[in-house]
Amino acid sequence: MTWLDLPADTLFGIDNLPYGVFSTADDPQRRRLGVAIGTWVLDAGAAARAVGSPDPLLEAPSLDPLLAAGRPAWTRVREALTRWLSDPAFRTVVEPCLVPAEGVALHLPFTVGDYVDFYASEHHASNLGRIFRPGSEPLTPNWKHLPIGYHGRSGTVVVSGTPVVRPNGQRKAPTDAAPTFGPSRRLDIEAEVGFVVGAASELGTPVAQEDFAEHVFGVCLVNDWSARDIQAWEYVPLGPFLGKSFATSVSPWIVPLDALPAARVAPPTRDVEPLPYLDDRDAKQPWGLDLAMEVRVNGSLISRPPFAGMYWTAAQQLAHMTVNGASVRPGDLFASGTVSGPDRGTEGALIELTWNGERPVTLDDGTTRSFLDDGDEVTITATAPGRDGGRIGFGEVTGRILPAR
Amino acid sequence: MTWLDLPADTLFGIDNLPYGVFSTADDPQRRRLGVAIGTWVLDAGAAARAVGSPDPLLEAPSLDPLLAAGRPAWTRVREALTRWLSDPAFRTVVEPCLVPAEGVALHLPFTVGDYVDFYASEHHASNLGRIFRPGSEPLTPNWKHLPIGYHGRSGTVVVSGTPVVRPNGQRKAPTDAAPTFGPSRRLDIEAEVGFVVGAASELGTPVAQEDFAEHVFGVCLVNDWSARDIQAWEYVPLGPFLGKSFATSVSPWIVPLDALPAARVAPPTRDVEPLPYLDDRDAKQPWGLDLAMEVRVNGSLISRPPFAGMYWTAAQQLAHMTVNGASVRPGDLFASGTVSGPDRGTEGALIELTWNGERPVTLDDGTTRSFLDDGDEVTITATAPGRDGGRIGFGEVTGRILPAR
Repeated sequence: MTWLDLPADTLFGIDNLPYGVFSTADDPQRRRLGVAIGTWVLDAGAAARAVGSPDPLLEAPSLDPLLAAGRPAWTRVREALTRWLSDPAFRTVVEPCLVPAEGVALHLPFTVGDYVDFYASEHHASNLGRIFRPGSEPLTPNWKHLPIGYHGRSGTVVVSGTPVVRPNGQRKAPTDAAPTFGPSRRLDIEAEVGFVVGAASELGTPVAQEDFAEHVFGVCLVNDWSARDIQAWEYVPLGPFLGKSFATSVSPWIVPLDALPAARVAPPTRDVEPLPYLDDRDAKQPWGLDLAMEVRVNGSLISRPPFAGMYWTAAQQLAHMTVNGASVRPGDLFASGTVSGPDRGTEGALIELTWNGERPVTLDDGTTRSFLDDGDEVTITATAPGRDGGRIGFGEVTGRILPAR
Repeated sequence: MTWLDLPADTLFGIDNLPYGVFSTADDPQRRRLGVAIGTWVLDAGAAARAVGSPDPLLEAPSLDPLLAAGRPAWTRVREALTRWLSDPAFRTVVEPCLVPAEGVALHLPFTVGDYVDFYASEHHASNLGRIFRPGSEPLTPNWKHLPIGYHGRSGTVVVSGTPVVRPNGQRKAPTDAAPTFGPSRRLDIEAEVGFVVGAASELGTPVAQEDFAEHVFGVCLVNDWSARDIQAWEYVPLGPFLGKSFATSVSPWIVPLDALPAARVAPPTRDVEPLPYLDDRDAKQPWGLDLAMEVRVNGSLISRPPFAGMYWTAAQQLAHMTVNGASVRPGDLFASGTVSGPDRGTEGALIELTWNGERPVTLDDGTTRSFLDDGDEVTITATAPGRDGGRIGFGEVTGRILPAR
């Protein structure tokens, strides 16, 4: 219990404590490490100083040093924050370090190392296979043997709220004789869950599934904006490139793995036997996570993607990503791939929700969308089971489409 | 002319002056910015101090600040270095800042931002199409309309000399019922040329071909190690991933664009009309570059790839990479793709040289290779036309294969 007066159904309770980086209007250049609690942001560095335990990890203008410090430091810092916000003895000195959340600006909280995007929803991969490769098997033969992924552009990962300029590019419908150049006509979203690496691994040495929590710090929400017309023309044979690289938005709050014990669930049964490094059938608790996501366009709820059904877990993804000896480093971000469930209204991308534009979605104002219009604002939120029947919030990742330049 | 006594055929003459980062055995932790000249490395920061013009850009332990400083700073620094090494008046104070090259350790000279690998040799793309997709058109329909590329793993870009551990991974021959796990049996090289971005661009704003030299600082050599068996099984539909991400080696010396005026040549005639942003037919001088490359395995020359024949130039690649609004930042690295010429013995990868293992290459010791053995050392070198009929050297990128762990 915290000494703060929080509503029982808060999504930012004492069992959550996600980390972010904020600034305030009176000193917009000064970035500080913050922790969300209720409708407040705790200035973590100031709190540490106030209680007489200044901590260099909490004084940085980003999460980078904390990420690099590794699991023992993460545990120590979380325990301290929990104590300061729970033990009434700390109230007098810590309360002045709380800043109203509504007044702060939130920034990209860490320097993104490599950004990898996976493709772990069987429903999403099947849907896209049917749409992009009609007449072929929806899933490629490798799909159930390994978590398919690719590297995205880390330099264009932006924080929630950053406007997204509609990309220009080459588009060619199968019936066109040649490609044309211009603004994407099929601008889409991909609702995903991102995993933020903290502790580095050594080049040449894989990270086994059981070491997942030693390396992964926390979880955020990701909107992997996608220009489907650009993507469709460019992606054979080397994969998505400009159809994705113009922007990837992330939520500003990183929910620590330590906040998610009640969210862990068994992943779906796999119908192909995994190779040993991907096998999690004997794991005491595999890394399925029961996040309930919601996607809104201009405030209208258009989808409720269920993360619990993802075929591949983040622990499998990390094991796969490093099994060839590739190293990870602080700030590496890997995303789940679009989260799509089996049912109508649970798909995490418009191309699936509207079946390639054939059945547009209707928004609350009566307008319809096949893909995004200029001015549209997309917001993805999620919650997960927390302690004692409560819920853990992930905040939101949002972005508005600006016209092409 | 320099006051240093250099042989007429030196590859590191006063018209080259590539930048790197070095340390010496007496103080291995102290990284310094160096410039190669003859058989010497000039301690650039020390030289600036010695002549009474200390420069913070030259005092850093990496090229990062110099890269970020942009074209005017690059011109100023190069002019100063040229003056200090040319004007005999500087000799007394500058000569003590020269360190014998043979005694220094060379490091990864900059922090790699995003790493993009292109696919710009028509011969290479055609050869791989024939090998990976027999029975289909060798080139995909998009190949002559856009420079195909994908993002690689920047966290595993390593400097020349770093050993490369043979990757483990999933391999499946078309005749196998299921994939097996183990060390790659088809470990290959890709001889490439890399372009190092200096000045950043703004998110949402493309970089036109004519602004290439405002953003690109210099050129290095790249060996994009490739595990063909892992790659073949994983790469449909999202592109290469673990088949590449275990290591990418770069040469330690970054040759500035300013050293390459004599190397610029017209690219080959394109047989498909490019869209306007890719059109370089009216450019005063397009960015074809006449680098003559050599590939050696254990000292045996196995290939001489000709860079001048690349279908897409680096200026076209940068224009394409940013046409969707993606930004670049200091330290971004983009590589040409494997450099393969039209003739036998000019291919930049073993899979082409040996035609998928069907015609092994014979080394000087009489042994043959289809792909790389443990212990093999691969070295790629290149030179380009310099001033007055001389040659500019790029040094080398080398790496030895260690057994899988």
